[in-house]
Amino acid sequence: MTNTPAPAGTTVLPANECWQLLRTVSLGRLAVWVEDHPDIFPINFTTDHGTLVFRTDEGTKLASALGDTPVAVEADGVNANSGLAWSVVIKGSASAVLSIDDVLDTVKLPLFPWQEGHKDHFVRIAPTSVTGRSFKVTEPRTWWDPLANAPHTAAE
Amino acid sequence: MTNTPAPAGTTVLPANECWQLLRTVSLGRLAVWVEDHPDIFPINFTTDHGTLVFRTDEGTKLASALGDTPVAVEADGVNANSGLAWSVVIKGSASAVLSIDDVLDTVKLPLFPWQEGHKDHFVRIAPTSVTGRSFKVTEPRTWWDPLANAPHTAAE
Repeated sequence: MTNTPAPAGTTVLPANECWQLLRTVSLGRLAVWVEDHPDIFPINFTTDHGTLVFRTDEGTKLASALGDTPVAVEADGVNANSGLAWSVVIKGSASAVLSIDDVLDTVKLPLFPWQEGHKDHFVRIAPTSVTGRSFKVTEPRTWWDPLANAPHTAAE
Repeated sequence: MTNTPAPAGTTVLPANECWQLLRTVSLGRLAVWVEDHPDIFPINFTTDHGTLVFRTDEGTKLASALGDTPVAVEADGVNANSGLAWSVVIKGSASAVLSIDDVLDTVKLPLFPWQEGHKDHFVRIAPTSVTGRSFKVTEPRTWWDPLANAPHTAAE
């Protein structure tokens, strides 16, 4: 499901593991296309039978999510025990949850928003692609070793 | 600098405060357009004289960030004292850091990557827009009150 080879130190996660990880978090970021540029919004989402559902009020986030262009949602985290970080991206199209049965089903989902307010629109993202990777979180200094001997200016 | 009115309970942040908040974090999410869909990547960035700089290896992230389309970077956090959450979005165009002087200046930036590996490309994002909001993080239950009396099915 992934188009690019995983960099060294990175493990490509199978889809079931991606879903399992998504179920452990509620905060993600939604990327949408707005007119002539991408935009990102933090969202509170929940998983629901192989889809993502989030709730929002009127505004750019809703309008652009429901446009013709696909959207992407990313969530990530760090496993405190293993020290492994993970990042999962869901790509797909978003649609409003409109039917009464679907809304009543959806309001039962544990969608806890970061931000209060009248978030009266439910949006469901049906994935066309689910990709995930896990990788080791690096100690800051590890990364700098190859450059430790680079020439330094007097201003340092 | 923002196109949509702030929802109730949300404060639009001035640009200087957005930059101040960006300097407190190193993990953000980069939204790019890849062929026919948006994609999101976690990135480690740093601020540098009114620009964002991140480091990456070859791949989709680099190729799409350096394409013709603009990019967006979002970072967010919660102030542990005030309980206020914030989200800042930088929109702009990305360009590779190529000149030797610029690279030598840039390697001195405190860019600590989440993930080790040969991240040999520096990318700088020159913002065309800097927007930010702060909002109160809601207790999960607060949000559900209006729906607490919604009809429930027996299956619950």
